[in-house]
Amino acid sequence: VGSVKAAVAEALVAAVPASVFVVPGHPIAGTEQSGPDAGFAELFQNRWTILTPQARDDDAYLEAVQRLADFWSALGAKVERMDEKHHDLVLAVTSHLPHLIAYNIVGTAADLEEVTQAEVMKFSAGGFRDFTRIAASDPTMWRDIFLGNKDAVLEILGRFTEDLQALSRAIRWGDGDKLYDLFSRTREIRRGVIQAGQESAEPNFGRDRR
Amino acid sequence: VGSVKAAVAEALVAAVPASVFVVPGHPIAGTEQSGPDAGFAELFQNRWTILTPQARDDDAYLEAVQRLADFWSALGAKVERMDEKHHDLVLAVTSHLPHLIAYNIVGTAADLEEVTQAEVMKFSAGGFRDFTRIAASDPTMWRDIFLGNKDAVLEILGRFTEDLQALSRAIRWGDGDKLYDLFSRTREIRRGVIQAGQESAEPNFGRDRR
Repeated sequence: VGSVKAAVAEALVAAVPASVFVVPGHPIAGTEQSGPDAGFAELFQNRWTILTPQARDDDAYLEAVQRLADFWSALGAKVERMDEKHHDLVLAVTSHLPHLIAYNIVGTAADLEEVTQAEVMKFSAGGFRDFTRIAASDPTMWRDIFLGNKDAVLEILGRFTEDLQALSRAIRWGDGDKLYDLFSRTREIRRGVIQAGQESAEPNFGRDRR
Repeated sequence: VGSVKAAVAEALVAAVPASVFVVPGHPIAGTEQSGPDAGFAELFQNRWTILTPQARDDDAYLEAVQRLADFWSALGAKVERMDEKHHDLVLAVTSHLPHLIAYNIVGTAADLEEVTQAEVMKFSAGGFRDFTRIAASDPTMWRDIFLGNKDAVLEILGRFTEDLQALSRAIRWGDGDKLYDLFSRTREIRRGVIQAGQESAEPNFGRDRR
């Protein structure tokens, strides 16, 4: 398991004997905490696990992949298979860029002179606190993710920055229509996330443990 | 109440008779939903309300301010008073920039050709979904906030972008130490947010309604 596939799978396949079945996988679930104590029984319930099997079609390997898929299903997860390069791009969008942005905004806020760190913490309920959660994820793991998925992350980051410049320009020139259009469009994505069962509209986001 | 103070307070004071006490305020609480139905009894519990009174020291005005502070306290909120310009800068950091970034990343993700919107939604539990929540906030209100607090937002956005470029460069050149340092530093801010009682470390963020 892990958040980067292409580079890791290549290294792993090269390192193990040919008799070993390598089936890279990635459960898209969890919190900002890590280690066994951060687990809970419902962690994988209704979450997706991505498997990125090798391009092999011998029966023994296919059977091993299916056994692993069944394992994840038994934990309550839904399983999707995809190409490892596509996995790395999908995760660059849905996980790596969000983490990078969160780390960055928390760093920016911490470094301001005019606003104190105490103020940032006290008044964080206006949106900032959600970013601090993500930015509390394990530093070693995330350093390695960004270095291991460099190309996809920089590609997505480049697009993000372009879009942000356009938004900045719209604010500077008072282009309210442009802002309104984007802000309406993003609501649709939120609806899709809720419909996909990945979150609820409740204030606690449907993330009750029980 | 409202998320921008300086421009609004000025317009309001100019518009009402001198006998009216204008006491701008801003409760830092709420979800991405708006309107009376989005309220719940514990909404303001342990959250901060900022009052930005005018620079007046006549007894009648001070009494009105105190009465309003008591009102918020009675709802369970903690009250802080500050200068309206400082409010707008604090909120640019703790609320406006987070919303801008969230709107932007959701827009970027929606526009990709290589990754479908369905994939973005399905695999959003890796971090992205938290941004979709914020990016589902009311478009009209947020358009007006960005236009009404333009200077502070652009100032903070400029710093954010600078920091992001540095981070992008660190990834490109494989500067793992720089990444690790930032990612460790941001964890401290998270601890501060939790200590300030603005969130818990539970997977549901302590946002149970009851």
